[in-house]
This record gives sequence, structure tokens and C-alpha cells, in this order.
Amino acid sequence: MTVFEDLESEVRSYCRNWPVVFDTAKGSRLTDVDGNSYLDFFGGAGALNYGHNPEVLKGPLLEYFQRDGITHGLDMYTTAKGEFLHTFEDVILKPRGLDYKVQFPGPTGANAVESALKLARKITGKEALINFTNAFHGMTLGALSVTGNSMKRGGAGIPLVHSTPMPFDNYFDGKFPDFLWFEKVLDDAGSSLNDPAAVIVETVQGEGGLNPARIEWLQGLRDLCTRKGLLMIVDDVQMGCGRTGPFFSFEIAGIQPDIVTISKSISGYGLPMALVLIKPEYDQWGPGEHNGTFRGNNPAFVTATHTLRHWWSDDVLERDTLRKGEKIEEAFAKIVKDTTGTTECFQKGRGMARGIQFDEEGLAEKVAAKAFEHRLLLETAGPDDEVLKLLPPLTTSDDELDEGLAIIAESVRTVTGS
Amino acid sequence: MTVFEDLESEVRSYCRNWPVVFDTAKGSRLTDVDGNSYLDFFGGAGALNYGHNPEVLKGPLLEYFQRDGITHGLDMYTTAKGEFLHTFEDVILKPRGLDYKVQFPGPTGANAVESALKLARKITGKEALINFTNAFHGMTLGALSVTGNSMKRGGAGIPLVHSTPMPFDNYFDGKFPDFLWFEKVLDDAGSSLNDPAAVIVETVQGEGGLNPARIEWLQGLRDLCTRKGLLMIVDDVQMGCGRTGPFFSFEIAGIQPDIVTISKSISGYGLPMALVLIKPEYDQWGPGEHNGTFRGNNPAFVTATHTLRHWWSDDVLERDTLRKGEKIEEAFAKIVKDTTGTTECFQKGRGMARGIQFDEEGLAEKVAAKAFEHRLLLETAGPDDEVLKLLPPLTTSDDELDEGLAIIAESVRTVTGS
Amino acid sequence: MTVFEDLESEVRSYCRNWPVVFDTAKGSRLTDVDGNSYLDFFGGAGALNYGHNPEVLKGPLLEYFQRDGITHGLDMYTTAKGEFLHTFEDVILKPRGLDYKVQFPGPTGANAVESALKLARKITGKEALINFTNAFHGMTLGALSVTGNSMKRGGAGIPLVHSTPMPFDNYFDGKFPDFLWFEKVLDDAGSSLNDPAAVIVETVQGEGGLNPARIEWLQGLRDLCTRKGLLMIVDDVQMGCGRTGPFFSFEIAGIQPDIVTISKSISGYGLPMALVLIKPEYDQWGPGEHNGTFRGNNPAFVTATHTLRHWWSDDVLERDTLRKGEKIEEAFAKIVKDTTGTTECFQKGRGMARGIQFDEEGLAEKVAAKAFEHRLLLETAGPDDEVLKLLPPLTTSDDELDEGLAIIAESVRTVTGS
Amino acid sequence: MTVFEDLESEVRSYCRNWPVVFDTAKGSRLTDVDGNSYLDFFGGAGALNYGHNPEVLKGPLLEYFQRDGITHGLDMYTTAKGEFLHTFEDVILKPRGLDYKVQFPGPTGANAVESALKLARKITGKEALINFTNAFHGMTLGALSVTGNSMKRGGAGIPLVHSTPMPFDNYFDGKFPDFLWFEKVLDDAGSSLNDPAAVIVETVQGEGGLNPARIEWLQGLRDLCTRKGLLMIVDDVQMGCGRTGPFFSFEIAGIQPDIVTISKSISGYGLPMALVLIKPEYDQWGPGEHNGTFRGNNPAFVTATHTLRHWWSDDVLERDTLRKGEKIEEAFAKIVKDTTGTTECFQKGRGMARGIQFDEEGLAEKVAAKAFEHRLLLETAGPDDEVLKLLPPLTTSDDELDEGLAIIAESVRTVTGS
Repeated sequence: MTVFEDLESEVRSYCRNWPVVFDTAKGSRLTDVDGNSYLDFFGGAGALNYGHNPEVLKGPLLEYFQRDGITHGLDMYTTAKGEFLHTFEDVILKPRGLDYKVQFPGPTGANAVESALKLARKITGKEALINFTNAFHGMTLGALSVTGNSMKRGGAGIPLVHSTPMPFDNYFDGKFPDFLWFEKVLDDAGSSLNDPAAVIVETVQGEGGLNPARIEWLQGLRDLCTRKGLLMIVDDVQMGCGRTGPFFSFEIAGIQPDIVTISKSISGYGLPMALVLIKPEYDQWGPGEHNGTFRGNNPAFVTATHTLRHWWSDDVLERDTLRKGEKIEEAFAKIVKDTTGTTECFQKGRGMARGIQFDEEGLAEKVAAKAFEHRLLLETAGPDDEVLKLLPPLTTSDDELDEGLAIIAESVRTVTGS
Repeated sequence: MTVFEDLESEVRSYCRNWPVVFDTAKGSRLTDVDGNSYLDFFGGAGALNYGHNPEVLKGPLLEYFQRDGITHGLDMYTTAKGEFLHTFEDVILKPRGLDYKVQFPGPTGANAVESALKLARKITGKEALINFTNAFHGMTLGALSVTGNSMKRGGAGIPLVHSTPMPFDNYFDGKFPDFLWFEKVLDDAGSSLNDPAAVIVETVQGEGGLNPARIEWLQGLRDLCTRKGLLMIVDDVQMGCGRTGPFFSFEIAGIQPDIVTISKSISGYGLPMALVLIKPEYDQWGPGEHNGTFRGNNPAFVTATHTLRHWWSDDVLERDTLRKGEKIEEAFAKIVKDTTGTTECFQKGRGMARGIQFDEEGLAEKVAAKAFEHRLLLETAGPDDEVLKLLPPLTTSDDELDEGLAIIAESVRTVTGS
Repeated sequence: MTVFEDLESEVRSYCRNWPVVFDTAKGSRLTDVDGNSYLDFFGGAGALNYGHNPEVLKGPLLEYFQRDGITHGLDMYTTAKGEFLHTFEDVILKPRGLDYKVQFPGPTGANAVESALKLARKITGKEALINFTNAFHGMTLGALSVTGNSMKRGGAGIPLVHSTPMPFDNYFDGKFPDFLWFEKVLDDAGSSLNDPAAVIVETVQGEGGLNPARIEWLQGLRDLCTRKGLLMIVDDVQMGCGRTGPFFSFEIAGIQPDIVTISKSISGYGLPMALVLIKPEYDQWGPGEHNGTFRGNNPAFVTATHTLRHWWSDDVLERDTLRKGEKIEEAFAKIVKDTTGTTECFQKGRGMARGIQFDEEGLAEKVAAKAFEHRLLLETAGPDDEVLKLLPPLTTSDDELDEGLAIIAESVRTVTGS
Repeated sequence: MTVFEDLESEVRSYCRNWPVVFDTAKGSRLTDVDGNSYLDFFGGAGALNYGHNPEVLKGPLLEYFQRDGITHGLDMYTTAKGEFLHTFEDVILKPRGLDYKVQFPGPTGANAVESALKLARKITGKEALINFTNAFHGMTLGALSVTGNSMKRGGAGIPLVHSTPMPFDNYFDGKFPDFLWFEKVLDDAGSSLNDPAAVIVETVQGEGGLNPARIEWLQGLRDLCTRKGLLMIVDDVQMGCGRTGPFFSFEIAGIQPDIVTISKSISGYGLPMALVLIKPEYDQWGPGEHNGTFRGNNPAFVTATHTLRHWWSDDVLERDTLRKGEKIEEAFAKIVKDTTGTTECFQKGRGMARGIQFDEEGLAEKVAAKAFEHRLLLETAGPDDEVLKLLPPLTTSDDELDEGLAIIAESVRTVTGS
């Protein structure tokens, strides 16, 4: 471990909470160099919806490498990309009645977001944006400018100034009508709001603390954008690819965003890959106007194609995700109930993106640390890390789920003394 | 091919020049779905210095996947990362007397650049930067703000304002002393130059048109930065990893930048991966202050480790690159000579990053198009695409090199009628 | 009049509504070149609180010019400036228990605002500001960035980005608790609000449409600023100097802003002059850090001194202003009542800054045009010029007030047909 | 004097060098409260080209006040404004073959500059600007962004980012061709220069240290702007109104700027007033798009009219200014010669805007301080206050000029020991 402490930058973070050296992984389990096994409810921060190294994808991936399929293809036409596009259209877009052009930006969520923001500005000729409180969209300058967290924003080193925050759903505990402020400043020629090109929104804010937007809020936002001429960008990097049940997290609201960003679990195997989906009429890019070296990570296209075929040709995974989500919800309800009187907490989330928010500062982090002693990996989220965050692989078995939930319950008990 | 035209965004570009569907690749050759073979002098825009799917790396990569080594590891400690760090220290840093901390940013060059700029601003508490004319550093907002190309800058949709351009080496054909303007505005309290945190520079500008900075210019810049308290960031994303001969392109100048960005060929296999190298005293990141989902692309760490062991444990590759570079230089000299009187052109570059600049607008693109008819892949570069650009894999055989150079000579002849 | 149309820029505006050439003026009356007399309820947009060319000031002014008192004094010490400072301290600051340092910026409100914003940023080291919806603070870039009107903001030609708007009092017709949104985003480390240096606020928004902030709202804002460490800047350029009754418009709330900007009526004679008042602990300017050629308009200091002595040594003017304000209020109440059923309107304002807001677009402008036919000068205000705006000199006699109010009532009747 | 130290902000500056209280002034002389007389070679920083309280203007000014001519007229048509416009056209524009529309911005140079920059951006739809090294254009945010001095820029508190500096004439002591860098970055689509709307330039940089641009440089700049489609703004606030000889300082180059800013001495009496002159085709303002309370300072219009009539109906003043300028030049040449061997200095300037630049830090300030002991007022200029700056009233008599120049020579001798 010395090599990490000696050579790796101080910027490293997760490893500080889990100071062991991991070696192999399969499904929902990681194994360290000493042979210890860990249950993973962290799921690569949303990049491992199908678990580690899923066997169903491993075969095609190995075969592709074996036969020297093109690995690095920039934005050239390749068999692997063609198959992915066909499959994405057949399995995802057509059945949902969605019509999008597909952009392959650099293979990270931040790059997809940067592309989306640039495109929205190009389409509208406007410079200003609207983001929501406690949003997270990435760490490059454009993505950071629409991100809420003040520590992360501070890292920019320059003022992040071209976006104005609006309250996310439920920001005032339901006491304040949706979009009252937002619509008023849009309508008022004297509000001093710079005329916005677009809104960028998550349907459930992951890093922001597992805050779900209600269906009617999402519909209201779509309606507001349509009425006022704003583009609606849904950042589905963390909540897409089935995390909340359906492939796209916005499907439950029956809305169609103008631009959608996808990354994390799209390859299915944890390989870097990202997409920007663009309504055809808004595909106003010039050739090469946004580029990048790793836009054609073809092995990822291969696993992505097989992921879609295997898990998204029917609704088994979607229904299973919802069922397991309810299971987590029940377990969390019990934890909340059991801690009543000892500490204040409540649960949040949707599908298999779930969290428990603790009032007491530092408690969520203590529970996660205690869970790690029991070899369960858990993240915290929210502006003050006040939310215990669960993103287990959607393929986690019921037994594993029970095991992990039991460890969480036990950890909460130990830490709170409830 | 219809699927690409129907579904893929208009932003796609290389594929427009090479309208075939590629399937497999090995070394310096690609094969399309019809079985036609293409010689690749484009080299993944610098990401394939060791050719496509190098056999020496393929074995370890397959083995790693086979044994379910961790694929997606965020910034957790893993065996694969540990081995890479050890090897990077032993093979690269120590023998060169370099002392750097290693940051794993998101796995693209743009992300490495964004990290570097953020860090430089944090270290100095200053907001302004210096970039050089015809620089290229990436397409995300931070990276774009230090990039020269006006079409690409226009894509930002907001004013890119926190960096001031300075003339790159030889911008005035040697008629104007180096750094005269730069040093004068730094010294003059009335110059209106915003006090810069750092300079970001390429030693050879690839996208800018294969413009090499002379050794003494690089030394002068290092000296200027030291004297004036500016951080020196070398962006070695395209010219690093041996492209110009030595591992780091700045080695020939005997200088040590404060921050170095590395990506493209670092994995050796075309897999997404990037590094930021930081002088220890400047590793002032807080934990998690810059993060990203795909920082731990462990298969890339595995191939990167084996790349370093295989190609960088001795100086065979470096010497071979310089030798082949001279070979290209000679072939280009003949082309320049043969076209004299017919068209004006001259050659530029260093090591195996080489180009021919044509005075006549559109000529370089016509030559590249003609070469493609002969199944040779070639890119163009420069603000007006006036430079024919060669980045063949360093592992290209002499026979392949001869073959490609002959095609180029023939294509120039055909196009110019010389 | 041809000379104006031929030679003066298209930017001219008031003159388009009042296409006559004025020659002389006295008290609340202007006379045009044809000898026609006009009643002035526009009051130099707040710069003529004591009427045109007040006789009590004219004597000292002429005497000062006669004896060649220094006219242009930059920021040199002069007798005229010394007397003004003494008088301002004795008549204004001391009796109110206020402790401020006095800065003489350039002689316009915009310049005072620019100074105040620069100083607030210097004191706090922060770049962001908070302004309020429908604020007006001036037309130079800094002042414009905290101004609400979208047409005026558009004139900047660059994005105005360093200030975030918050709802002014009563923005939601009282349905939404004061400062709920403002305080929440300040407290929430994930809100994405850039940490603000200061708020800048008018107690009654003149250009914004005569919107008065309630006493408790102003107190709440002062309290919020104190609790959160924000500087409170009151822009009293239009509402200060007795316009709403007391000398400072914020006196009714019993609060002490950290910085106050004063201009318009401070000279008493319509001469260019401005002040920035700064709490002593915040007077952190370095010598010459903000300067300007006309900071020492000494004739204005002379008339300002006599204005303070004549009108502010007792409370006669203040009480009279409140009384006349009530008179206007009664007249307006009758107009509102009389138009009920014909058109929707309501009155707004405080002291002798009063307005009637009409629902029907263009109506306020029609009333003002009709009033001009009766030789009464009236302005409109609000984001859509929906408010008929009255700023008569505070010294307007009761007879003149009656005369003007009758013209307004008649004009409303004619225009609305009520 | 206590009142100033107790009550006035620390921002005050000139008064710190001249710690006496001035009372009256006439021509080139000021008198303090103790009856001491001072010779004024500072000239209100360029606002007193005709001396203090010129008798020829005093009469009409007093008469105007006496007869209650409108004092404060906003942008209403008034007799005084009409007469000024007529006179300006007849005396200034027509004889010089100039065709400009006249805008009355707020009555300060900074406001004129802010207007000019806003208009240039509106006309072109571009955001970027070009300013020159060591420029000074004012202290409001827009004007400051094109100003060179780093201390003054620092006062902005936000990054000043929308303008790029270019070298003023002679910045490299003539060793570098004019506009080599400027034209190259304009032409190079890869230079990263943001496409500029306009250049703003002084013909002689006053605050920057009395740096004169050569005639051919000004012509070259006009030509460059025309060829490249940039608007040329000449800021003639300090050097206009005859300071360098002709009314407009750019007349010697036979060029016509697209926009000209005028202020300081335009009223002739030191009263606040400013103009923006706009080529008719560029007068694209909408009504009220730039406004301000003190645009109609009518007493200033009166004195401005009489100034033009008295001093600009013939070329007597212009020739006299050039003659006196030569006289200063000779006196300065002697000073430079006499100090040779003791200290290094050289003279700069044009017409009656003259300076001596000293190599030794602090020397210019010491000479100015010594001169004040002899009751001569002198300013320093340049980024490090290294230039002794003379702006005596153009109406200074030959005897006064001799007297002041003798004091300067004596002060230099005393301070340098030469």
C-alpha cells in the first residue's frame, strides 16, 4: 500500500475509507489481496449496474479482443459501433417511441455533459443556463458550473458564472409551489435573470443526496421548458441504465427531454463510454465541432451491445429492480423506526438508488465506516455527507441484499446506540 | 453504413473522410468489413504509438479479464494500479531523475488538462493563464479556453476569457526575439495582463500543425516561468509516450515541468487512460477535489504496465523512433524538392510526428483523400488544415514506412501535377 | 429642434415624449422657448427634490462663482469641500447617530454604485453579489450587472454574470415567506450559489416601478446580512435626500447599512455630485484606488452645504413630504376607485415617490402623453413601463400639487374612458 | 484640515501630496486659505485647459444662472444644449470635415468610455476588445477592463477578462515592426484571440506616462482596423480639447475614428460634461439604451459653447499651444542634459502634455514634492509613477511657464544633486 501513499496524489479519496488493496471482483463481490471478500453496495458509483465482470459480457469481450477487433477507433465507422447503434435503436429507442440522434463524446459523464451544454448554447445562441440546487454533473469547468457542491465548485479556481440555480423539487418541503420563482423570473423582464438556453436536471440527485423529483415535478419542468422555449437536458449518467427501474429514469414521467446524457453503466462492464442523445432537430453540430481521442472505445461498444440484448430485451430486470428497491425501502423503514428517539433520520431515493439521511453531522460517515468493518462497501452523499448512499448492482441477489441490509441495520445500531 | 448516417450525430468527422466500416486491426494495419487492408499513418491521433492490439499486451490483458481482475475500480487501491505505479516509478521516473506525484483524472486528455489547470489555479490563487498560439488542449470548457482553433473555440457558446495567448516558438519566423512580448507584459505593471498562474504548452503542436518548439525556446520558457513565478504545465498528451523519441517530449530540453499531462498512448492498447504528474510540493489537492467515474480503468493499468516494461526498459524504441523520424524527414525533403516550382510546401515536426505544410488552400486535404484511395490513412492539421499530418505507430516496420511514404509521394504528385 | 434630430444620437429618450425646447425653470415649473409653462412632476428623475434653481441656493452659488472659488478641485482639500463635510456631519450624520466615512466618487449615481461594489469585493475578497428583482443601479458595466431590466442589460454586449437575483419584497404578493429562498441557498453548501460579498438594495424601487420594501423586510434583510456575513449596500441615489420623507430612506427601518450610495438631489441644485458613505471599519480603500476627474465639483459642494442647512436643520421638510405624500395617496385612491370596472390599476410608493400601475399594456404611457398635452411632465417606470411615476419636487406647493393631480385624474379619465 | 482626515475616505490621494486647503483659483493660479499662491501645472488632470474660472466664460455662466436657465435637463431639448450642438457643428465638426452624431452620456470620461464600449459591442455583435499596454480609460468596470495599471485593475475585485492587450507604439523601442503581433493573431484562425469588436486607444497616453503614438502608427492602426473590420475608438478625454495642439488629438494623423470620447476640458470651466461622437452609420442606439441622471448639465453646455466660440473659431490657441509645447521641450532638454551622469532621464509627450521619465525609482515623486515646496503643482504618471507629468493650462502665460519650468529645473537639481 506504500506505493499509493508515496506516489499517488492526495486527491485520491474512496481508497482512504477502504484502505485495502482489491484484486479481483465478480458480481456484487470484491476480493482483496489477502483473499478477503467484500460485498459491494457502492456499485462503482453507478457504473456497475450489472455487477463486476458479468460473465454474460465477458465471453463476447474476450472473443472481440481475441480476434483483434478494433480497440481504438476514434469516430471511425466500425462493426462494433454499428452493432451497438442498431441494438440501441431496436432495443431502447424504438420500443419507447423515442427519436434521438446519438453522439459519442469522450467516454465520461463529464464529457457528455460538456457536449450537451455546448450544443444547447449553439442551438439557442444563448449563454446562460439553469441548474438545480444540489445538482452534480461533473468536474470539468463546464460541468462544474452547473454543479451545486461548494467544495467542488471552489476547485474551479475561477468564478463559475453562467448558470443560475433554481430550487429542485421539494426544496421547501412542499410548502412552496413548484416553479413559482423560476417561472416568475422567466416572465419578468425586470428580474435580471439572464435569458437561459437550457435547464440541466437529474431525475434523482445521486451525489446531491438521493433526492428524487416527483413525476409531476418532472412533467411540470418539461412543460415549463416547452412553454418558455428552454431546452431540457436530462443528465441520466447515474440514474439511467436501469438504476431506478426503467432504462431511462425519466420514463416514469412520460416526458421526452431534448438532450440526454448517458454514461457509467452504459457499457455494462465498467468500461469508459458515454452517449449524448439529441432530438434530431437539435443535432446542429458541425463535423468535428466537439471531438476527443477516446470516443471510439470499441470493446465498450461490444459489451454495451450485449448488455442491451441480455438485460433490456424484456422487462425482467426492470421489474426486479423495482421489487428489490421496495425491499430496501422496507429495510430502511425499519431502521428509521428503530432509531426513533435515538437519532433523527429518514429515507430517500427511487428504485435501487436509495439513501438514509441522518440529522446528526458525521453519522452517515460513521455508519459507512462501521459497515466496512463488516466488509460492506457503502458511500455517503449530500452537501454535508449526511446521507448513507446505496447503489448496489441491480443484479445483486436477494441473499446478498439481505446480507448487506442486515449489516447496515447492525452498523446503525452500533453507531447510534439505538 | 446507413446506421451511422441515420443514427449518429452530425458531429462525426474522421469517418466522413474514410467512408468504410472497419472491423479488425493489428499493428499498423486496419481491415474493413470487405476484407480490404489499410495502412494506418494516423495512429489513433497519437493513441496507438505501439500499433493496434499489440500482441505483447494482448496476452496480459486477456489473462486479466480471464481471472476477473477488477475492471472498474474508481480510485480504490488495486493490484493493477499498484503495479502500474511501481513500474512507472522504476522504468520512467527514477531513471530520468524525475520526482512527480501521479494523479489519475478521468481517462481522457481533456480531463487531465482540466485537472492541471484547476490545480495550477489552486496552488497560486490566481485565475489567469497563458496559452500559446495554435495550441490544442481539448474540448471541455477549461481545456478549450487554452486552445487556439477559432472554430473549436466558437463551439463553447460562451466567451473563453481567462487565458491570454502568447506567440509559440517561431511564430514570427525567427525575426522576433523569444519571449520579448511575454516577458515585457509580465514585467510591466501597466500592461493590463492579468497576473497568470501558469503557462500550458506543447513541445510540438500536433493539432496546431506539427510545430516544434526548439530546445532553447523550451529552456527559455522554463527559465522565464521560474524567474517570474509561473507554473509550467507541459501537455504531453499527444507528443508524450515516445512520439518524438524519448518518453517525455520535453526530455530533450533537460527541463522539468511543474505539471505534466499524459494520456492517449499511455495504456499502450488504445484504452482510455490519463495521468497528471505533479511536482510533490504542488500536490495540494484535497481528497476528492477532482474526481470522476472512470479514473480506475484497471485493464488499461495492466496494459500500461506491460507497455512500460516491454518498450521502455531500454532505449531501443527511442533510438528506432529517431531513426524512422529521419527516414520520414528524408522522404519529405524529396517531396518538397520535387514540388518546387509546382507548389509551395515545407516540412515540420520532430521524431515520428511529422507534417508537410502546403501553401495552397485545400491541397493537404486533397493529398490525404488521394492517399486514402491508395488505402493509406492520413490526417490533416493546422488552423486551416494546411498540414498533412503523420503519426504512424512507432512500431511501424521499415517496409510499411516505405510503402506509406511512397503512397504519399505519389499522392502529392497526382494532386499537384508535379 | 432640427439640430437635435440631426446631430444628437438616437439614444436620446425623454425628449421624444416632450418634443419642445425648454429654456428656463424655477421651482416646479419649466418654460419652453415659446413661453409655455409646464408643471414638473418628473423632478429630474429625483435630482430636483428642491425644485429647479432654488433661490435659497442660487445666491451662495453665484457668490461662489463671483469670488472665483475653486470650481474644479479633483480630490484636493478645498474650503467648499471642508464646509460640506462639516455640515454633513453636523446636520445629517450626528443627529441620526450614524458613523460613516465619506467618499467622493465621480459625480453620478452609477459611479457611486461602481465604487460601492468594488469596495465590497475588496473588503470581503469575494466576487459574487446579490441584487434584487427589478433593481436599477445604473448603466456602467458594474452597475448594470446588478440592474434588472433586460433591455438595459442587453446593452452591455457581454454576459453580466457576477450577481444573482433574489426576490424583492412582495415579489410573490406576500404568499411566500421573506428570504426563504435567499437564506436557504446561503445555508446550503450544495445550492451552487456563489458565496456573495454583499447585497445591493433600494428601499423603494423607482425605475423598477415604485415598489416599496416594507420596514420589516428591510430589517429582515439587515438581520440576514449580519447573520450571514454579507455587506448591506443601500442605493439611496433616487430615494435618498428626503424623497420618501426622512433624509435617508432607510431611516424608517432603524437600520444602518454598511455602505450607502447618494447622488441625484445631494447638491440641491441639480449639479452633478455623488457620495459613498462607508462604515469606518470598511473604509479599506488604498489612496487613489478609485478615482475620477470630477470628484471635486466644488460649486455642487457649496449648494449641497446650503441645502443641508436650509432644509435639514429641522424636520419641517420631512413632515411636509409625508403630508404631501398622503395627499397624493388620496388622489390616487380616488383614481383607482373611479377606474374600477373600466381598467385595473393600483397605487404604489412611499413619501413623494408614487405611482399608479395599470394592468393594460401601454396605458401608463398614454396617460403620461395625455398629461403632457396638459403641460404636466410625468415619467413611466416598471419593466414594461406599466407604472405612471410621480417624483414632484418636495417643495411643490399644495396648489401645484392639486393642479397636477387634477390633470392626472383627467388624463386617466380621458385615456380609459372611465 | 482635520475634517478631511476624520471624515473623508482613505481613497483620497492628490490631497496627500498637497496638504493645504485651497480656496480660490484664477487662470494658472490657486490660492490657499492662508493666502499663499500656487502655480498649477497639473491643470485638473486635463480638465482645465483654459485655466481656472476663465473670465470669458464666467460672464455667460453667471448670466445663465441669473436668468434661471435650466440647470438640470436630463436629455430634454434645451436652448443651452441646442446652442452647444450648433456651435460644435459649426466650429469643430464642419471645418474639419468630420461627420459625427453626438451622444451626451453621464458627465464623466468613464461614462463616455462605457457608452463607447457598449455601442461597439452592439454594432458588431462581438464581445472582445483590444486595448493597449499602459492605457487608461477610467475606473468603472467596463472602462477598467481596458485600463493597464495593475493596482487599479486589482480594485475591480473580479477578473477583467473581455479585452486583450496589444503593444502601444514604441513598446519595443522601435525594434519590432508595428502591428506584427496584432495583425498576425487577427489573421491566424488558430491564435486563440477572441474576435474583437473594437480597439480603444489614446493618441498620447497621459496616465500611462505621456507616451505619444507616432502619426504613422495611428494611421497604421486606422488602416488595420478598416482592413480587419474592427471599430476604432479614440479616447480623447485627456488629450482632446486642444491639449496637444489641435482640438482633436488625432487630427495630426488625418484619420477619422469611428467613435470618439470627449470629456475633461470640454465645458471649459471644469464643470462635469462628456460626449461620445459616433459616425452616423454606427449610431445604432435604441432610445434610452444608455442613460444617466446628469447627461444634461446645462451650465456646462453654456460654458462649452462659449469656449468653442472664443478659443476655437481660429487657430490662435492651437499655434500657441504648439509654441509653448516647444518651449517646454527645450527646457526639458536642458534638464535631461544637465542630469546626464547624475541620473538617467528622458522626455516624452506632445503639445502641452509633457513629461520627464526618470530611471531611478521614486525620483519623479521626489521632484514633484520638491516643486510643491516651491508652490508648483505637478503630477506623476506611468505604471511606477516614474514620469514627472505636466498638463499646464494652455492659457498659461509665458512668464508663468518660465517660472514653473525654472522651479522644475531647480527641483531636479536639488533632488538629484546634479
